[in-house]
Amino acid sequence: MSELPLSARDVEFLLYELLDVERLCEHPRFGEHGRESFDAMLGTARRIAEERFLPYHRKADEEGVKLVDGKVTPIPETKAAYDAAAEAGFLAAHHDEAVGGLQLPWVVTQAAFAHFKAGSVQLFSYHFLTIAAANMLATFGSEEQKALYLPRMLDGRFTGTMALTEPQAGSGLADLSTKATPSGDGSYRIKGAKIFTSCAEHELSENIIHMVLGRIEGAPQGTKGISLFLVPRYRLDRGGEPGEPNDVVMTGMLEKMGWHGNTSSPVNFGENDDCLGWLIGEPHRGLFYMFSMMNEARIGIGLGGAVLACCGYSASLAYARERPQGRLPSNKDPDSPPVAIVEHADIKRMLLAQKAYAEGSLALVLYAASLVDEQKTAPDAAARKRAGLLLDVLTPIVKSYPAEYGTLANSHAVQVLGGYGYTKDFPVEQYLRDNRLNAIHEGTTGIQALDLLGRKVGMEDGAAFTALATAIEDTIEEARGDNALGAMAGELADALECVKETTWALLAAKDGGEIDLALANATLYLDTLGQVVIAWTWLRQAVVAAARATGASGKNANFYAGKLQACRYIFRWELPKTGQQCALLAGLDATTLEMQDEWF
Amino acid sequence: MSELPLSARDVEFLLYELLDVERLCEHPRFGEHGRESFDAMLGTARRIAEERFLPYHRKADEEGVKLVDGKVTPIPETKAAYDAAAEAGFLAAHHDEAVGGLQLPWVVTQAAFAHFKAGSVQLFSYHFLTIAAANMLATFGSEEQKALYLPRMLDGRFTGTMALTEPQAGSGLADLSTKATPSGDGSYRIKGAKIFTSCAEHELSENIIHMVLGRIEGAPQGTKGISLFLVPRYRLDRGGEPGEPNDVVMTGMLEKMGWHGNTSSPVNFGENDDCLGWLIGEPHRGLFYMFSMMNEARIGIGLGGAVLACCGYSASLAYARERPQGRLPSNKDPDSPPVAIVEHADIKRMLLAQKAYAEGSLALVLYAASLVDEQKTAPDAAARKRAGLLLDVLTPIVKSYPAEYGTLANSHAVQVLGGYGYTKDFPVEQYLRDNRLNAIHEGTTGIQALDLLGRKVGMEDGAAFTALATAIEDTIEEARGDNALGAMAGELADALECVKETTWALLAAKDGGEIDLALANATLYLDTLGQVVIAWTWLRQAVVAAARATGASGKNANFYAGKLQACRYIFRWELPKTGQQCALLAGLDATTLEMQDEWF
Repeated sequence: MSELPLSARDVEFLLYELLDVERLCEHPRFGEHGRESFDAMLGTARRIAEERFLPYHRKADEEGVKLVDGKVTPIPETKAAYDAAAEAGFLAAHHDEAVGGLQLPWVVTQAAFAHFKAGSVQLFSYHFLTIAAANMLATFGSEEQKALYLPRMLDGRFTGTMALTEPQAGSGLADLSTKATPSGDGSYRIKGAKIFTSCAEHELSENIIHMVLGRIEGAPQGTKGISLFLVPRYRLDRGGEPGEPNDVVMTGMLEKMGWHGNTSSPVNFGENDDCLGWLIGEPHRGLFYMFSMMNEARIGIGLGGAVLACCGYSASLAYARERPQGRLPSNKDPDSPPVAIVEHADIKRMLLAQKAYAEGSLALVLYAASLVDEQKTAPDAAARKRAGLLLDVLTPIVKSYPAEYGTLANSHAVQVLGGYGYTKDFPVEQYLRDNRLNAIHEGTTGIQALDLLGRKVGMEDGAAFTALATAIEDTIEEARGDNALGAMAGELADALECVKETTWALLAAKDGGEIDLALANATLYLDTLGQVVIAWTWLRQAVVAAARATGASGKNANFYAGKLQACRYIFRWELPKTGQQCALLAGLDATTLEMQDEWF
Repeated sequence: MSELPLSARDVEFLLYELLDVERLCEHPRFGEHGRESFDAMLGTARRIAEERFLPYHRKADEEGVKLVDGKVTPIPETKAAYDAAAEAGFLAAHHDEAVGGLQLPWVVTQAAFAHFKAGSVQLFSYHFLTIAAANMLATFGSEEQKALYLPRMLDGRFTGTMALTEPQAGSGLADLSTKATPSGDGSYRIKGAKIFTSCAEHELSENIIHMVLGRIEGAPQGTKGISLFLVPRYRLDRGGEPGEPNDVVMTGMLEKMGWHGNTSSPVNFGENDDCLGWLIGEPHRGLFYMFSMMNEARIGIGLGGAVLACCGYSASLAYARERPQGRLPSNKDPDSPPVAIVEHADIKRMLLAQKAYAEGSLALVLYAASLVDEQKTAPDAAARKRAGLLLDVLTPIVKSYPAEYGTLANSHAVQVLGGYGYTKDFPVEQYLRDNRLNAIHEGTTGIQALDLLGRKVGMEDGAAFTALATAIEDTIEEARGDNALGAMAGELADALECVKETTWALLAAKDGGEIDLALANATLYLDTLGQVVIAWTWLRQAVVAAARATGASGKNANFYAGKLQACRYIFRWELPKTGQQCALLAGLDATTLEMQDEWF
């Protein structure tokens, strides 16, 4: 059995040494838990991931999903993987004990999911969507809806999907046109076409519960007229069991660059005017509900980007240690034996960059997940409020940095292996193809950028941005006194100051009515603030590593030395880029905005 | 029939307005040629590319190469594409009339090949390798060898391959171990295993001529003991026709991330001790011969990277113009119709970046190709020498910038299409997968970087680097007087000064014995000098565009406005990055070098 390409030591460091998640157990909700139960869950996840996911990731990619006797059929091992994680309780892990959940902190469930994703993001997508749909239902569904559907979604009998995107609208949710007409009995007749709905059709579960955005007849135009519906594949009979089909049809199979292990497809709801949906919450509040769950969902995507980066790092490091080739430039003796390529500076660069992007992303994602817990369970209202603000402003970065830099990390992994990396004899090219999706689904990087600059940094008079700046400043203060870290603390302070001034300049331009100009370079802004946030995330890790390195020996000493060197890499190679980027942003550069269609 | 995704207007601009290739016809070698014959060849290439290549690029990717009755079989359209380009004379285009060639300038043949590559890089790889092998033979082969093989390689009856890489050696050619033992009759018995040999086995041609690097028994270790052999798949009989098989066996089919239309595979020479090869040139000079042809070969890879970037740009632009979605941030009226996404600033950014990378790469590649012609035919020795120096120092950049930034451009193309870009319903994801190889084959980016910093910039006391700096300064002087371009000229002068100082600092460190440290960040140096070279390439285009924009109207005016805006993009968004990069380089940053294996 192959070892999972995700460092158990790093997960341990992040959860217990950096984030101190045991602290969460002081809250009554998590009072039954402690390191022992956390470790047990993580160990179970690792074991299932190694047994049921990892061995089939390549197979899922190679064989894809087939139509067999008219049925949408993933590779058979998908079902075993699905069931194993469901039976071990992972679908219900963070839910209340009252509904059969384990009341695990969200951050611990995410750390567990990291293992499944390292096994196979493709196979885990069925769980991922079920968890997202169940979350939505648990938070906004009526008691009756919850009673009917939730227990079965938590035990794995029913899977779920999110059916938002429409062929004509894409990222422009305001233009959604799926219609909902009251049927008279409290339900709605749903009619519309969705696209890129993942896991919309299969036989892994007894029923598939679609969370569908649509418009009730007569609803306002735009985003204020969108409602959320629960639309099952099979209607429930009186006993609550799946009965009649509900006129939901997957109408095609899209061939994709990666993720062949599941479908992402067009789906017709109500092709024969016989699709019933049930309104979740109040009319016209669908987008609000969807966005309320967005932080969690987007953390999940960020986790995928981070984990795939970790996997590529792990695979390319193993290769670099075993592959002898060439000599150091200073050695011109052809009789000397070749060195392992891990000794070459350029290979070290690509490995170190991967480590910095991958572990930095994972640290950021798990920190954000811990904010989800803080937001709900921190002891005082101010701390809960602060956690919510941090989460709001960080989410676009948590979603996009791991996607963008994780994909770059995967490209480095391919490059470390050279020609071999381009072949399917090694897993790295698949990680690259899989990761490329993460900058697209659940809101593209460009959409994240508009969310960040157009909404988050200015919200509540800049309260979220200020909360972030304050948190960063706290780390700077902590690190300033340290001999090894003081210089980096100063560099981060400078970069933060620069990004602050840039932020206020952009917000001022926006408030002054220059909306299109102020937002024109939003993606560059997202990247810039992202670099600062990642540098901060690394400095936080370095503070812990520096303290623990004293007196550490052997593997532990090496582990902390690696953390410190990756932090140095980020500060030497990456963070300085923000200076030029801030200059471009603060100067309201109009180069792209002024480009005309006919000039292309 | 679909239109070729390569702008005819841009090719025309580059050849005739920027590079003034008609000027080459003053040399007797090209005296029969002129714009008319050039245009005729380009037109023929475009027609064949549209008819025989483009329609089958996706099919080649989807169906790949199969084993049919033990024969290695690409899709059947491969043969038609191969024959059409061969019959139109493209395999012989730059060769002497005496051997059936057309004596076209190299730069014009490369522009023609751009069309085939835009049709399908995969299908064109058979021609590409045949041309490379024939070049080697024409330059270094004996008269007898040429008489036997060359005419058939130029008319398409024989194809060729380059068999350099070995499984255990990869980029480390010094360690290659294929053996050559004199057989007594002037030939050698060849024995060894190669890997990643492209197009090594198929039935498209009557014979396959492998150019094989190997070691004659008793030869020195390292790179000084390598010889070059001509090894046919079938030995020629007395009549010069393919006869007995020559014990060359393709031993496997590698599944790859892209380029499924041809094989890149392990090949055994002399498994049964019955493989004969003929020495090309003198013993132990193989690597010298190979490197002598390297500039041309690497320009060819750069061309592939540039053209694939152009293709993705073209496809994503067409999509962006047709796809309505969303509204400008300043427009909050949900009743207004959605705009075409080409109107969104972030889409413009991704299109403009693609244009800047793709057209900048193509301009650079064709300029380098024109240096190949200048090197051979410039009127005076000093000009020929200068062209050779420029070519030497530029080749690592010409090979790697289009590969790296072209792949980034293709990633932008995917992003412009969003979820659709990730599917196989559009061509952009295939361009991305295909282009990802270009940073690997024919010397990885890291190898290019060592070639540039470890060899090229320091050669002949920095003569090549100085020739490049002087050429850049000439353009700066030209642009300084122009109102619109003066500021950019100044910025380029500053960046050039910075990279000059950095270069001398690195060379001084190297000369001072700090070899490993000076070369540790070679890849960053390659990128930095590459950015300066691309900015220069854009300023050169802008000088021409600015002059011609005066009085231009309609499509032409738009074309020149686009060139100027893309140039501005490079100067605002890309060139400023070199400042921080130079600081890192000149400071001899040791972050990556000091990273230890056990810290990863």
